[in-house]
Amino acid sequence: MLEYTQHANAGDQVRREIEEVLAQGRTRFQEYLFFRSRMHGVCVVLDGDIQSCASDEAIYHEALVHPALLLHPDPKRVLIMGGGEGATAREVLRHPGVEEVVMVDIDEEFVSLCRELIPDWGGNAWEDPRLRLQLQDINVHLDEEGPGYDVVIGDLIDIHDWDSPAAELYGKAFYQRLAQRLNPGALLATQAGPLVPNDLHGHLAIRHTLYESFEHVRSYGVVVPSFYHLWGFALASNAPLDTAPAVLYRRFDETARARQVEIPMTGPEALAAAFALPHAILRSFER
Amino acid sequence: MLEYTQHANAGDQVRREIEEVLAQGRTRFQEYLFFRSRMHGVCVVLDGDIQSCASDEAIYHEALVHPALLLHPDPKRVLIMGGGEGATAREVLRHPGVEEVVMVDIDEEFVSLCRELIPDWGGNAWEDPRLRLQLQDINVHLDEEGPGYDVVIGDLIDIHDWDSPAAELYGKAFYQRLAQRLNPGALLATQAGPLVPNDLHGHLAIRHTLYESFEHVRSYGVVVPSFYHLWGFALASNAPLDTAPAVLYRRFDETARARQVEIPMTGPEALAAAFALPHAILRSFER
Amino acid sequence: MLEYTQHANAGDQVRREIEEVLAQGRTRFQEYLFFRSRMHGVCVVLDGDIQSCASDEAIYHEALVHPALLLHPDPKRVLIMGGGEGATAREVLRHPGVEEVVMVDIDEEFVSLCRELIPDWGGNAWEDPRLRLQLQDINVHLDEEGPGYDVVIGDLIDIHDWDSPAAELYGKAFYQRLAQRLNPGALLATQAGPLVPNDLHGHLAIRHTLYESFEHVRSYGVVVPSFYHLWGFALASNAPLDTAPAVLYRRFDETARARQVEIPMTGPEALAAAFALPHAILRSFER
Amino acid sequence: MLEYTQHANAGDQVRREIEEVLAQGRTRFQEYLFFRSRMHGVCVVLDGDIQSCASDEAIYHEALVHPALLLHPDPKRVLIMGGGEGATAREVLRHPGVEEVVMVDIDEEFVSLCRELIPDWGGNAWEDPRLRLQLQDINVHLDEEGPGYDVVIGDLIDIHDWDSPAAELYGKAFYQRLAQRLNPGALLATQAGPLVPNDLHGHLAIRHTLYESFEHVRSYGVVVPSFYHLWGFALASNAPLDTAPAVLYRRFDETARARQVEIPMTGPEALAAAFALPHAILRSFER
Repeated sequence: MLEYTQHANAGDQVRREIEEVLAQGRTRFQEYLFFRSRMHGVCVVLDGDIQSCASDEAIYHEALVHPALLLHPDPKRVLIMGGGEGATAREVLRHPGVEEVVMVDIDEEFVSLCRELIPDWGGNAWEDPRLRLQLQDINVHLDEEGPGYDVVIGDLIDIHDWDSPAAELYGKAFYQRLAQRLNPGALLATQAGPLVPNDLHGHLAIRHTLYESFEHVRSYGVVVPSFYHLWGFALASNAPLDTAPAVLYRRFDETARARQVEIPMTGPEALAAAFALPHAILRSFER
Repeated sequence: MLEYTQHANAGDQVRREIEEVLAQGRTRFQEYLFFRSRMHGVCVVLDGDIQSCASDEAIYHEALVHPALLLHPDPKRVLIMGGGEGATAREVLRHPGVEEVVMVDIDEEFVSLCRELIPDWGGNAWEDPRLRLQLQDINVHLDEEGPGYDVVIGDLIDIHDWDSPAAELYGKAFYQRLAQRLNPGALLATQAGPLVPNDLHGHLAIRHTLYESFEHVRSYGVVVPSFYHLWGFALASNAPLDTAPAVLYRRFDETARARQVEIPMTGPEALAAAFALPHAILRSFER
Repeated sequence: MLEYTQHANAGDQVRREIEEVLAQGRTRFQEYLFFRSRMHGVCVVLDGDIQSCASDEAIYHEALVHPALLLHPDPKRVLIMGGGEGATAREVLRHPGVEEVVMVDIDEEFVSLCRELIPDWGGNAWEDPRLRLQLQDINVHLDEEGPGYDVVIGDLIDIHDWDSPAAELYGKAFYQRLAQRLNPGALLATQAGPLVPNDLHGHLAIRHTLYESFEHVRSYGVVVPSFYHLWGFALASNAPLDTAPAVLYRRFDETARARQVEIPMTGPEALAAAFALPHAILRSFER
Repeated sequence: MLEYTQHANAGDQVRREIEEVLAQGRTRFQEYLFFRSRMHGVCVVLDGDIQSCASDEAIYHEALVHPALLLHPDPKRVLIMGGGEGATAREVLRHPGVEEVVMVDIDEEFVSLCRELIPDWGGNAWEDPRLRLQLQDINVHLDEEGPGYDVVIGDLIDIHDWDSPAAELYGKAFYQRLAQRLNPGALLATQAGPLVPNDLHGHLAIRHTLYESFEHVRSYGVVVPSFYHLWGFALASNAPLDTAPAVLYRRFDETARARQVEIPMTGPEALAAAFALPHAILRSFER
């Protein structure tokens, strides 16, 4: 039996039965593996970490995208950092007021593999004229592009080794450059590692760095069943973020209705509830 | 290396590194295993299923106990079914208005093992004069005892095989007998298996059966990290249950304050958010 | 991490780290998987069982082929049943007196995969004019072909389920048909499952059936490290088989020298020693 | 399910289903674990390595003891280094001419555990007046004891880390002291790690060091099924060692008969065959 094994933390492992390996190899930038698991459909692995599985990628991508877009009063230009599977763009493009989505992914080969092997993850996004796909280094993009983003979505790999090159995109210098490209009132949303009370160092590192470039930072978490963890995200902005649950409920619900945005796998209530973290986690946050 | 392996579902496994096996054997009723895991401290296993681990048993037990007790306006008599570890009683007894907690666990040997090996899980409960411990079959208890419970907490093992004898305690006949012992306005809370969108049969079976004896049933879920799942619970009552998130937030918060009940690991906000399940789960509920 | 997991027996498992999956799929007849393991190079799996790994396939194939060929005074025509990887033919063709090797493998697609993915296992055999490759059912071959084999090599998959169709090729009726196609003095050698003292049922079943068609049967075993077992083989003949170790040593050594047959991975001494099984195994043999 | 996991090498693992953990802890010298596996009965683990399992400990201990004792013309005094399970002494004492067995094991607590948990492994040895048990450092023993051993059996843990303190007992200095305590014609037999063609470094290290203190060294290997490897041993002596298979067969057989020594699990033939290693291993030996 083929299996995919991944450490859930320093002591526990998750093993998944594999039905078929669809592709395995190395692009110029990373190692990839696409396999179909017995329980979760096709799973995408980059550098040894599961990125998403078909059974619940929509939970992950809805949670990554919609809180920021619903909290922004009128998001017109959106930047996606990474997002090669296409699912992040798919969710952003549900918001009818969005005029342009710039998706910057350094790895052309990986994006091609996704379009070939998991075309439905991107859905109509790949053909949507509002999507501008830039297969280049995000730093080059930031050099060349003028300012003007309303929302930035960070759909980059999670970092285990904070000395690795990829960790730069979660670093202070990078966030500061990014902050300069944002419109007033803009929001950044990023995946931010697992939210496990006794194993929060990765999430705390991201929160800490965001606070060096943004005045307001909020953590939230959603259960992505195939991740076997509460998965963490962070919202950051220089505009105030009112994430009191009662406020969020009303706001997500009303805005989604007004924009006629469907959020099929999670919904406004579950997204609002994602901001109500247990004390066991909250007490690790400094502020 | 010693490991504990458990199927997370039909295709995936979780393996935990064990530092020490504390006790292993068989009582008259079940197989037990107490081990200290590297990540989660002491874990208690019955009949091959992890019941709780020290690192987050409080999240599980707070979620099992407090929603029902906070929603009841004045819970005085509480029945715990099972609960041998003592932690459920510990949480119930936080509510100062509770006058009597009857804990009925059939397995005297298991309760003794818990008091010896994990005494802090029960905390002061074992010495609290309000606790009445009955080491007998819950059916015998229901035969002998008069009515009069305000809240019933079902802290029984999860069922994989719905033809097993233990499944009887999640069955229609049993719930109907139980319903007859309840005071008006009483609530039942029970653990109700994992809440995983593509693997909900266990939870749905419990919901379905509860609806045969109670007018109102609500599902909620809390992340217990050592379970590697969103863990499900069900509330049932013949009195209306208003679990709109905004209502719950206010109610949990106000009631906890009024009773001066501490809910240290989760808190009123996270418990209220537990009722806001994602559409991916809700759409499997018939009503 | 990708892994390949296989039960070593009813209680133990072997897990192998996989570097790359080379091919995976289903032919008309069987499921195949070719992967490169970290320790053993490319491994070939059929219907969930490892057939051979590059690191020690030569030990397996030398042990399968050379005892029978060295014990026959002048093997001219050899039949290989199965053997799609090509390595069995490679070993048979080392014997210069062999005039024709008929290799009958039912699975053309699998043979093609082997020639593409592990071409060196067959070595020069695929081009050797003495090799006649017949991609058909062995039963059809036996119907069409006249008698006249000096040695038959059974390189078929090991049987776990004795009710499966493949088990027929280890059955009494098949062996009796086969016996009728043999020249006087001919030998049959077949793989015969693991030789583990407390788990011998598979090997014993093969011995038992061989004894129904042949007067003399001998078991021998060789350590194939990547199998994690002493692997069993059986020799059968209607001519007497003198396998006293001292006799075998001399005979293997002298014959190998006389024929100038190299046996690079095992050698005549180790092959002779393979017949000296421990009492723990011998006492399970009826005769 | 409880499992015991051990690396078979750098890429593969063996996982064993555990029925019961009998004892687990730490003596002054080492970590121990006694468990009953589903396939192999009680297994003894020291410092994370399986020492032996009930199902085939006799194969291991017969192979460790009898070649040396059968090759010595008249072994009277035997030293066992380690051997806490008692099984090595049990095998040595089968030889009726043995007058004294000095068993030196540093770990009194481990020896007590073995006598309590696996008393049948020692059999009658613990009560045999010829056994002298010394619970002390072997170095202290060598300081205090005069010379005069005919056979020395090294039943010490296998070494993974050649910089660890235990590695000293496989080192040049130690072997040279030991060599000075031996009678003329004496033999040393020691366990010598797995014999796997592409993973021989441990065995080669032991061979190399033995050659620095003894003129003649021979390797041999026996399949211990619960080890999932061909297990290696080494014989060393300053007297010539004629281990040509034909010679060994006759000698083991005749001597075992003459002494009326039963070797129930392996037997003289299998022990002689243990010296006929495959070329794949032999070619790694320098001499």
